[in-house]
Amino acid sequence: MENLIKANNFIGCESNYTESELVIFGAPYDGTTSYRPGARFAPAQMRAESFGIETYSPYLDMDLEDYKLNDAGDCDIPFGDRAASLRMIKEVAAKIINDSKKFVAIGGEHLITLSTFEAVYDKYPDVYVIHLDAHTDLREEYIGQKLSHASVIKRIWDIVGDGRIYQFGIRSGMREEFEFAQDGHTYLNKFNLNGLDEVVDRLKGKKVYLTIDLDVLDPSIFPGTGTPEAGGISFKELMQGIDIVKQLDIVSADVVELSPHYDTSGVSTAVACKVLREVMLAVLYK
Amino acid sequence: MENLIKANNFIGCESNYTESELVIFGAPYDGTTSYRPGARFAPAQMRAESFGIETYSPYLDMDLEDYKLNDAGDCDIPFGDRAASLRMIKEVAAKIINDSKKFVAIGGEHLITLSTFEAVYDKYPDVYVIHLDAHTDLREEYIGQKLSHASVIKRIWDIVGDGRIYQFGIRSGMREEFEFAQDGHTYLNKFNLNGLDEVVDRLKGKKVYLTIDLDVLDPSIFPGTGTPEAGGISFKELMQGIDIVKQLDIVSADVVELSPHYDTSGVSTAVACKVLREVMLAVLYK
Amino acid sequence: MENLIKANNFIGCESNYTESELVIFGAPYDGTTSYRPGARFAPAQMRAESFGIETYSPYLDMDLEDYKLNDAGDCDIPFGDRAASLRMIKEVAAKIINDSKKFVAIGGEHLITLSTFEAVYDKYPDVYVIHLDAHTDLREEYIGQKLSHASVIKRIWDIVGDGRIYQFGIRSGMREEFEFAQDGHTYLNKFNLNGLDEVVDRLKGKKVYLTIDLDVLDPSIFPGTGTPEAGGISFKELMQGIDIVKQLDIVSADVVELSPHYDTSGVSTAVACKVLREVMLAVLYK
Amino acid sequence: MENLIKANNFIGCESNYTESELVIFGAPYDGTTSYRPGARFAPAQMRAESFGIETYSPYLDMDLEDYKLNDAGDCDIPFGDRAASLRMIKEVAAKIINDSKKFVAIGGEHLITLSTFEAVYDKYPDVYVIHLDAHTDLREEYIGQKLSHASVIKRIWDIVGDGRIYQFGIRSGMREEFEFAQDGHTYLNKFNLNGLDEVVDRLKGKKVYLTIDLDVLDPSIFPGTGTPEAGGISFKELMQGIDIVKQLDIVSADVVELSPHYDTSGVSTAVACKVLREVMLAVLYK
Amino acid sequence: MENLIKANNFIGCESNYTESELVIFGAPYDGTTSYRPGARFAPAQMRAESFGIETYSPYLDMDLEDYKLNDAGDCDIPFGDRAASLRMIKEVAAKIINDSKKFVAIGGEHLITLSTFEAVYDKYPDVYVIHLDAHTDLREEYIGQKLSHASVIKRIWDIVGDGRIYQFGIRSGMREEFEFAQDGHTYLNKFNLNGLDEVVDRLKGKKVYLTIDLDVLDPSIFPGTGTPEAGGISFKELMQGIDIVKQLDIVSADVVELSPHYDTSGVSTAVACKVLREVMLAVLYK
Amino acid sequence: MENLIKANNFIGCESNYTESELVIFGAPYDGTTSYRPGARFAPAQMRAESFGIETYSPYLDMDLEDYKLNDAGDCDIPFGDRAASLRMIKEVAAKIINDSKKFVAIGGEHLITLSTFEAVYDKYPDVYVIHLDAHTDLREEYIGQKLSHASVIKRIWDIVGDGRIYQFGIRSGMREEFEFAQDGHTYLNKFNLNGLDEVVDRLKGKKVYLTIDLDVLDPSIFPGTGTPEAGGISFKELMQGIDIVKQLDIVSADVVELSPHYDTSGVSTAVACKVLREVMLAVLYK
Repeated sequence: MENLIKANNFIGCESNYTESELVIFGAPYDGTTSYRPGARFAPAQMRAESFGIETYSPYLDMDLEDYKLNDAGDCDIPFGDRAASLRMIKEVAAKIINDSKKFVAIGGEHLITLSTFEAVYDKYPDVYVIHLDAHTDLREEYIGQKLSHASVIKRIWDIVGDGRIYQFGIRSGMREEFEFAQDGHTYLNKFNLNGLDEVVDRLKGKKVYLTIDLDVLDPSIFPGTGTPEAGGISFKELMQGIDIVKQLDIVSADVVELSPHYDTSGVSTAVACKVLREVMLAVLYK
Repeated sequence: MENLIKANNFIGCESNYTESELVIFGAPYDGTTSYRPGARFAPAQMRAESFGIETYSPYLDMDLEDYKLNDAGDCDIPFGDRAASLRMIKEVAAKIINDSKKFVAIGGEHLITLSTFEAVYDKYPDVYVIHLDAHTDLREEYIGQKLSHASVIKRIWDIVGDGRIYQFGIRSGMREEFEFAQDGHTYLNKFNLNGLDEVVDRLKGKKVYLTIDLDVLDPSIFPGTGTPEAGGISFKELMQGIDIVKQLDIVSADVVELSPHYDTSGVSTAVACKVLREVMLAVLYK
Repeated sequence: MENLIKANNFIGCESNYTESELVIFGAPYDGTTSYRPGARFAPAQMRAESFGIETYSPYLDMDLEDYKLNDAGDCDIPFGDRAASLRMIKEVAAKIINDSKKFVAIGGEHLITLSTFEAVYDKYPDVYVIHLDAHTDLREEYIGQKLSHASVIKRIWDIVGDGRIYQFGIRSGMREEFEFAQDGHTYLNKFNLNGLDEVVDRLKGKKVYLTIDLDVLDPSIFPGTGTPEAGGISFKELMQGIDIVKQLDIVSADVVELSPHYDTSGVSTAVACKVLREVMLAVLYK
Repeated sequence: MENLIKANNFIGCESNYTESELVIFGAPYDGTTSYRPGARFAPAQMRAESFGIETYSPYLDMDLEDYKLNDAGDCDIPFGDRAASLRMIKEVAAKIINDSKKFVAIGGEHLITLSTFEAVYDKYPDVYVIHLDAHTDLREEYIGQKLSHASVIKRIWDIVGDGRIYQFGIRSGMREEFEFAQDGHTYLNKFNLNGLDEVVDRLKGKKVYLTIDLDVLDPSIFPGTGTPEAGGISFKELMQGIDIVKQLDIVSADVVELSPHYDTSGVSTAVACKVLREVMLAVLYK
Repeated sequence: MENLIKANNFIGCESNYTESELVIFGAPYDGTTSYRPGARFAPAQMRAESFGIETYSPYLDMDLEDYKLNDAGDCDIPFGDRAASLRMIKEVAAKIINDSKKFVAIGGEHLITLSTFEAVYDKYPDVYVIHLDAHTDLREEYIGQKLSHASVIKRIWDIVGDGRIYQFGIRSGMREEFEFAQDGHTYLNKFNLNGLDEVVDRLKGKKVYLTIDLDVLDPSIFPGTGTPEAGGISFKELMQGIDIVKQLDIVSADVVELSPHYDTSGVSTAVACKVLREVMLAVLYK
Repeated sequence: MENLIKANNFIGCESNYTESELVIFGAPYDGTTSYRPGARFAPAQMRAESFGIETYSPYLDMDLEDYKLNDAGDCDIPFGDRAASLRMIKEVAAKIINDSKKFVAIGGEHLITLSTFEAVYDKYPDVYVIHLDAHTDLREEYIGQKLSHASVIKRIWDIVGDGRIYQFGIRSGMREEFEFAQDGHTYLNKFNLNGLDEVVDRLKGKKVYLTIDLDVLDPSIFPGTGTPEAGGISFKELMQGIDIVKQLDIVSADVVELSPHYDTSGVSTAVACKVLREVMLAVLYK
């Protein structure tokens, strides 16, 4: 009945795992979300709604249909056990990397990036990080916890050290976090993507991991997220940013923090689907 | 990565098509809905939310995990072309029936029952129909149309004639429709499931097709539907009804008219998932 | 273009004012609502959604199409000026009564009943009141105000005195309000419609004004209201109640306290439309 | 009771049909919507909410109250019968045009423009089309259908041929559709309204039909639509665009694809009302 | 400015901690919720909405105003650290108990009951448990976790052993959980509160801890919860159940699993407020 | 239990009244709202959600934690009695002013500004007004009422006369209102904040009252308001405006017209919280 029946994959991901060069998978963990949880529902909701967008991008003039892409499904998460959840996500990411493929992970909350990044770092220890977000995520700990969505970039800094992390769009955090960046530990650009082209020039030829917390977008276009922060970048600015970043050697990426239930209009999910399409195309771009 | 990754099927439908005795599939057509469309989103939403329920039914003391079940995905519907849509749905239903399996179709609007029933009728011309609904669906035509969600039972009557259709829970329609039933063309019980046990006694040993328009439920428990009609049956009454009907030889069935976007609480989708589980178990019951 | 174009009236109200025996009109005032306002939107929303129901009632076996009915539109309310708002509403109600017609007013909040009742009382000073509600509405004053949705029945008692008001479904109020009723000033039945048939027997032949605060319904079926109170009557019980009350000489009636924006599923509006249909038919019943 | 009672028309449309120079009417058809239906509810919802805006436009410094305007109500649509629906809409539009008036039609989905445009084209075969939209709408067919919201501009191109259609704001479609435009069949400007002033200069003195698919707006300000596409124009840009276009001889226009239920905040409906006001004033501008 | 300004407490809780006999506090933890999180928002939302209900209960004919009651605010929860969260909650509960007061805790998810119960058990090791819920909560572990909302009653059974736990309203769980109860480890009544009066007779004079998972209510009246299960008890049945249970020596209690964001109508929060009022009065009843 | 329990105040307002230099309080009155009421819920909702934002502002590089701030709770409003409501609000504002403190009032609808301003004016009769809003609010009367949210600035003009009121962001009103401003009675800048820096230069050293109707923001970022008007300023523009205004001697301020229920995503409330934080910091700035 193959020709009568539609698949349940994300749009354009019609190939099997073995033949694909890029694999997407869901990491539906949101256990440390401090304000509004629900990012766990993002991958399933994005698959269900993805047929509302096209496979062709007029921004990049590229088409998902021109590539072999696989949707591997979701990691099976034990809620309440942060350590086991992170371990499972890392296992999936590591397998894909070790099979010489690339991935784009779909969060879940931002803490999942610690796992997906570790899998990448194990293979490419010289990797750089480009981080788009509304929040610094640089807390040493959050309500007594070192592993939290609010401290995930600090944990990655623990691994890679100074000069490897580039943050854009940041507009919320404690004073101490902004000071940590100002002290030179990370490159941090407040409010927008200004300076991204210079950074990309500097990183040409390096391996890069791209992590996009979707709350970098203004909540006017992306209300469906755990901690909406007004004053964000527009969708057009994000498209331009991805168009710049595509020139880099992006080894893998993630798109996190869609919390679909908070936006009953469905627009946030539609936006997330389109960002995922663009990120996939940017990773595939040569 | 099989043990790390969850499938996108409806819960408990983990077998492949060939080995399964019961197949579910989506028929996401809602093109003739006159009031509030959106039933097209029901199958995808039900799969996404089905992991919120259990495979075990404390009502029937049966468990989906004890059976070979397949989720065949959704029919690919050409919106705006009613005839082609109905043809595709019938094709899928016919293949399952001809492969000596049973199906439970997930609507879509009620007109899809015309297609699924025709597939069953072609093989079992002596089949009876049990119809749970808020509406008579007995219009000769609706806004000039003979093929409509509001006339689907009349079209089935065109095929099977008097004495083969049993309607329960009906509480909305034109006066003429109620009179058509009173004239003996169908058995029609207003408002509730009273008399269902006598009907089941009478139909013992016959082949039966079961069609459940979920708006038979009261909108208090099922607001997410195209034409909500207050005064419906409770979920408990529906569970009791299915418990009675399971004694019959149900050759196939459908569950239609969930329009999930109208219920932002998600309860309607959760209810539809549970009704689907119970109907599947009733069809499997021996 | 008359045959191409639909009217903006409530379903079934196709006659002009002069020829009609029953007139409906909106009284979209909600200025004293203390908890959740929005009843002002009820009449317009009910008209917009009324085409989702039928003109035929299977409960009463009557059809709106068999009567001359007029929808006179909405009173133009000066928000913030309670006195002027009430005066305008009374003026409309009085004109209809003085033209020897009957009306069913659509609230708005419950305070509008003071105006509509006064218009009726001026012509029929011996009129009785049947009051279905979740709340006693018997406060002497509310936050310093004598004219309030929470004191409307007390104000009507000021006019008619003891023994003329029959309250049903009541399940919220201050202790003093329940004691006022227990002291014999009104007949008050808590929680449900028990005793309504005896009251109707007693009032046979008398003129009766019927006021239905829709929050008498359980919020499971009617969440779209200013002060939802769990533990209410079901839609079926309300249908039975109207079926009993129809035997009386209902000179006019009102249906109040739909606040449609609080129910994004639209079910509350659909319920209010159906209750309005039934109340109209009960007033028309001979 | 005329002075007590408000009308059910769109704000400012207080004149009767005969005396009016501009007539608005609803075309509530959404039968070919492939993603999220519901545009059928737009005209009724816009009327109900229109009293929330002013008749005066500070953008154009014009006031609806200075003109004779009629709201003719809605076409009565037979859902499921595309051909009959389109015929009825064309009939209404043709009558208005033939009575030497202008119209602004309120969708419904974009396919209704085929009917309204045909009525205009029959009288003014040299008419040009200005098309604001997120989507190309240039498919030869969509899921096997030639008559679809996704192919409406292609159908109009079938009628008028090359060089007559000017598209702005487009940001979604298949690669083939963009190539069709690039081949010179239509003028297509991606993403925004750049170049609109030059086009208006070129078309001065010609007759123009203006069709606005409201999803040309960014979903941040207009989430209530069938297929929201991030990256759209702002409301201010649309106001500027209308201010430019008003200099042309607009013979009639339409505003389509509000699907009000998807935006529970009501903002989309308020925006649609304001766009309708501005389009009416632009058509009236001399 | 004391007489001008309203407090932020739950309605009727106007006394300070020291003088109060009953203390309520929030335990806004929902870290192990497997389906839909958000119970963390319950206490704040309930306080904000509590002024919509009355202090007087017509069900129990008791009034909160007749007692000294304190609202102690919310525990400060470190999300993601289950152990620390549970420890903090227990600390608050233990202080109240050790100060010879009673408490009613407001969840949060059901796992918080492990902490509140332990505090009670430390002082009253002979305490019995009455458990109203849709779910068995008897899993040995859930997705690898022993401490989970789905296993909380099993953990309490680990402490108290056989014959001390009475479960009512249960309608969802794995087959193994129902069998565990059938084997006599707990008393479990499916679907409703039948048998509660016999149990209360049996427990007269014993100390009892009452835990109400609000999803025991039917989702028609309580959609705002993490895992809504159709077929629950009505609000009236719950009121009757509390009226029966009040005869026992309830040493403390909790009300859990309101997830307010899932019910945009606000009814679920209003219901939870009223249940809390009734539970407080039942604990106070002598 | 002080260290275990969180307060119910707005974030950062941890000091008592006496020691504080700035006091915030709620004025939850919305009785004259003509379109969509609900601003009464703003203060409670903002407190409940305020823990989702930080105390540190990266816009102003200031932190609420560096100041003594008090949250005095809400005025107790008698709905339906406009005069008494306004009197109570003025009383609270006057006490704070007379205690040589400053306040930021949280609406409620815009009419509350009449009361808060009068309290300020009584002490500082030479005060100027900076008014950010979508609406002129310059009606002489509204539906027959002189005291209305639509006429509040006209009433303030009655007090202060020409040359004292500066209006920005205005984009809706009657033609007469715009003409009143053009005649020189107020300074009115349409659509945006252009010219604010010149005005601030001019007012340096004067005492200023700042009133922000949050609907000055575009409804894309602030849908939760009574009368959303597309075409507003962005959040970034508002941040820049506050950064300019902070240089003035702001004696007190208000933030009005959040109607939280209309935005189920919660973004509007989050935005309002952040605006309140910035306004507080601007008032505190020296």
